[in-house]
Amino acid sequence: MSDTTVNAYLDGALMIRQPAKGYRAGVDPVLLAASIPAKCGQSVLELGCGVGTAVLCLAHRVPGLSVAAVELQSEYAQLAKENAQKNNVVLDVHVADLARLPTELRQKRFDHVIANPPYFDRAASVSAADQGRETAMGERTSLDQWVAVAAKRLQPRGYATFIHRAERLPDLLEAMGSRLGSLQVMPLQSRHGRDPGLVLVRGRKEGRAAFRLHAPVCMHEGTHHDGDKESYTAQLRAILRDGVALNFPD
Amino acid sequence: MSDTTVNAYLDGALMIRQPAKGYRAGVDPVLLAASIPAKCGQSVLELGCGVGTAVLCLAHRVPGLSVAAVELQSEYAQLAKENAQKNNVVLDVHVADLARLPTELRQKRFDHVIANPPYFDRAASVSAADQGRETAMGERTSLDQWVAVAAKRLQPRGYATFIHRAERLPDLLEAMGSRLGSLQVMPLQSRHGRDPGLVLVRGRKEGRAAFRLHAPVCMHEGTHHDGDKESYTAQLRAILRDGVALNFPD
Repeated sequence: MSDTTVNAYLDGALMIRQPAKGYRAGVDPVLLAASIPAKCGQSVLELGCGVGTAVLCLAHRVPGLSVAAVELQSEYAQLAKENAQKNNVVLDVHVADLARLPTELRQKRFDHVIANPPYFDRAASVSAADQGRETAMGERTSLDQWVAVAAKRLQPRGYATFIHRAERLPDLLEAMGSRLGSLQVMPLQSRHGRDPGLVLVRGRKEGRAAFRLHAPVCMHEGTHHDGDKESYTAQLRAILRDGVALNFPD
Repeated sequence: MSDTTVNAYLDGALMIRQPAKGYRAGVDPVLLAASIPAKCGQSVLELGCGVGTAVLCLAHRVPGLSVAAVELQSEYAQLAKENAQKNNVVLDVHVADLARLPTELRQKRFDHVIANPPYFDRAASVSAADQGRETAMGERTSLDQWVAVAAKRLQPRGYATFIHRAERLPDLLEAMGSRLGSLQVMPLQSRHGRDPGLVLVRGRKEGRAAFRLHAPVCMHEGTHHDGDKESYTAQLRAILRDGVALNFPD
């Protein structure tokens, strides 16, 4: 991939090379990583890792994790490998379709599976002109299939955590509800009082607790966008800059 | 039913007689009624109306509605009839099981179907000692069945609106998702930052809009309960006292 840029995450603690024009990660993978209750010594698999932003953020916050990732597009997977090396993380990256995971991965179970699946249902959206961006954002593999693969790769009592657009919440709950338990939803709203645009949804293998809907996490101060002024809430600044965790409430 | 009390709703505009010891309505039916976008001349059916609080609140806010209700327990249905008369509302009350609606109702379609189904799944909860309270709160008829009946009784483009505990949101979305479109969720939180305990969920027959999760409506000011001090937010006071609508955001 010829045209790339390097972007700083976590106040420069993590440097991520990504395509200049293809799919470019926003804050979503950072929030996903922040929400994972992983502990030193545990294993993590990211499905559809792109250039590796989420899993590398997580490896940075929690030392001693064993981290693996799958990415369909080889150019992105290659960048994920390079990003891992540059940031001194041993990341086991596989180029594969979720529906046909390599035998090595199918023989493993993970404590955590995380995913930031494509946000747009291709049937209902216009295709992106860039092919890499299209594959990263269009929904070639169904959301149900993403969840099915995540559930299969989990250890008993392991957690699957997805970040997605709020409008896909019913699909995500249905897909998780038939395979996992103890479902929890943490909505993310841009500003206080606004409809949450994103949701973090977590399920636990063999979990038996009742479903929980949490209060939204508010990302920006104030009621509207104020020019170029930095407006993240203190909580978001701590997550995005200092790499602090975004824990699901107990 | 021998032992009853009369309670004032909407600042005394509505007087509701209900059992002193059985199932007693809280603010939930008032919030349900406030959320219904009914217009003069339209028809409304309440499933499981109890003593009629929700449908009578709605009839009070929107003059010129044609209102009907079904209640399994004849004692509650009788109170609903009396409450309607006392409050000068022509309410068509039927004593019937949802699964076996009378022919008269099965021949009608409504612009709005509303429900505040039993909150506790009997399999997972201890039975209430009072038999009426048990039937009103235990889940004898499945939530899926409530939604199925609601969907069947709707006019094309009509709305079904349910209020339920937040922990039943996945079940409610699944039940509505297979029969209705344009699903929307309005969570209700007791205080700012708290997990929403209740959800208002609405679906539209033949609706095609994407799912929407709204920001929670906050019921009380402050961060904790302050003795006997009245603590409703201004919005809630307007709904509970002045009978103002609680509109789903556009």
